[in-house]
Amino acid sequence: MEGKATIDDKLKTCAVKVDRFIDELLKPRRPHVLYEAARHIISAGGKRLRPYLVLKSCELVGGDPDSAVPYAAALEVLHNFTLIHDDIMDNDSLRRGKPTVHARWGVPLAITSGDFLFAKVFQIMVEPAVKGTLPPEKAVSCIERVADASIEICEGQVMDTSFPSTKDVSEEDYISMIGEKTAALFRACAEVGAIVGGGSSDEIANLGTYARNAGIAFQIVDDVLGLTSDEETLGKPIGSDLREGKKTLILIHALENASATEGEAIERVLGFHEASPSEMAVAIRALKSMGSIEYAKDIAMEYANEAERALTSFPDSAAKRDLLELVEYFTERLY
Amino acid sequence: MEGKATIDDKLKTCAVKVDRFIDELLKPRRPHVLYEAARHIISAGGKRLRPYLVLKSCELVGGDPDSAVPYAAALEVLHNFTLIHDDIMDNDSLRRGKPTVHARWGVPLAITSGDFLFAKVFQIMVEPAVKGTLPPEKAVSCIERVADASIEICEGQVMDTSFPSTKDVSEEDYISMIGEKTAALFRACAEVGAIVGGGSSDEIANLGTYARNAGIAFQIVDDVLGLTSDEETLGKPIGSDLREGKKTLILIHALENASATEGEAIERVLGFHEASPSEMAVAIRALKSMGSIEYAKDIAMEYANEAERALTSFPDSAAKRDLLELVEYFTERLY
Repeated sequence: MEGKATIDDKLKTCAVKVDRFIDELLKPRRPHVLYEAARHIISAGGKRLRPYLVLKSCELVGGDPDSAVPYAAALEVLHNFTLIHDDIMDNDSLRRGKPTVHARWGVPLAITSGDFLFAKVFQIMVEPAVKGTLPPEKAVSCIERVADASIEICEGQVMDTSFPSTKDVSEEDYISMIGEKTAALFRACAEVGAIVGGGSSDEIANLGTYARNAGIAFQIVDDVLGLTSDEETLGKPIGSDLREGKKTLILIHALENASATEGEAIERVLGFHEASPSEMAVAIRALKSMGSIEYAKDIAMEYANEAERALTSFPDSAAKRDLLELVEYFTERLY
Repeated sequence: MEGKATIDDKLKTCAVKVDRFIDELLKPRRPHVLYEAARHIISAGGKRLRPYLVLKSCELVGGDPDSAVPYAAALEVLHNFTLIHDDIMDNDSLRRGKPTVHARWGVPLAITSGDFLFAKVFQIMVEPAVKGTLPPEKAVSCIERVADASIEICEGQVMDTSFPSTKDVSEEDYISMIGEKTAALFRACAEVGAIVGGGSSDEIANLGTYARNAGIAFQIVDDVLGLTSDEETLGKPIGSDLREGKKTLILIHALENASATEGEAIERVLGFHEASPSEMAVAIRALKSMGSIEYAKDIAMEYANEAERALTSFPDSAAKRDLLELVEYFTERLY
């Protein structure tokens, strides 16, 4: 396979285009501190997975991916807005190895810079229609998908926040929560790319199904990595979901299947921000020994397979192969 | 004038239509607490001045105001989103005589319910285009104005927050701040109403100028009332701007013109949340005696006159008289 672009190369190529757009969008203006805070998390990195979904979905339906760059940027900006507000709500002080916006500038500016980015999302999305480079009905359709996804993100966020204090959170509740909090945005990315690229309603729907399932797989993998990776790769402490009492699929499985000793090891850290590294290690060993981590990996694989199946009706193409590769890339991180 | 509808009656008629739309939009759904928090401030009251601007502007250019009801509702929802986030940032525990959202449900849910309402704004605005009741290019144009105004609101908010710790805040800085934080939304209301109603670009621009100037007058009047009204009418304590160290036009004038004694009376309460009612009374008397409150009233009147002048090119009509009456209503509150 020598000479062939890896997925990292492809993500990088997409990131360069999108970052150029975002840099121009957020270049320093008055009040400077607002623009600086708004750029902070975006410029701290990230793989630009969501923009990649937009561009590749556009390409898959026969569109010019360059025409979708503003939309790819808008959806990355939306993602970063949610990160800034989530960090306040979760009281997290590190993100991508850097201080979070509220840790650096305080809660008021973090709230406003998130709101500002959210407003920018819609400003970016109308501009091509105002300038005449995209038919207004397509812009309207994109804005509809993004507004709907934003509402789902808020609903999912509230569910996520309520789970630590809810006794019986089922697997179904968890999947429904990440379906809204994480996967709705993935779906909107694919749909928006397909709309801009001129896809048929079937193509838009199939790409949406693909991306929603890919998003669920992605989130479950992320939950697993939060326990099995290392602090440097994560850019934040290991096991923070446990410390915050979050009910992930892993934890739901564990609470249903734990022996008295295993249950005790988990309860000792669950929701305790002060849990020591050795207590965390004991709890994570318990999650491994009772198969909860493997269980979550299996479910992630099922959603990944479902995502791939949603692309069956598309003929073979470079863009299709790239989208299939993306899902493999999500789950590969597990092994 | 017996039998003639007063402005209060007219506002009420508009409020009923808009509230019916908002009630339907935010009717209880899961997660219930999110919808409850999102409705909380909206249902606590408010005069629905912004929706009134939308409907009357639509009518003035010859449109059917009922067709603009969704847009009127969207702009009221936007206003309420900003109130929820502002209350967190200002650490205010009362609004319209009720506990603020964060005081009742905590900061995380207050952040999310604001974000949720902001997303709803755009969902409402695309819907008529998706359903085919408004041409998509008009929806695009409305969304553009609202996104632009939202960005201005964030910029104004950051300026407002930075003023207490800024030494030399000029009158010009203050007007520029309220132009963004308050008047940009008023302008967007009038522009959106005129767009939906089929106004020409001149008509849209003139209505925008009218509403921007009216918004500046409104905010200055509001600052004055924050010092001269009573706690029950305000729904919050007297002089909270002073306690928060906010640089209003009144304060800027006072700091430039105070004698040593007057300056001392003001500095004793400025930025001190714990200032006693008697200390507040002394400071407010000083602001009155040196003419700072009268000065602000005069400036408010100038902007009100400017607003009225922007409507000169429109022939006489009921809608025009209603919009002129609205500006008088803003300034009348002073006397």
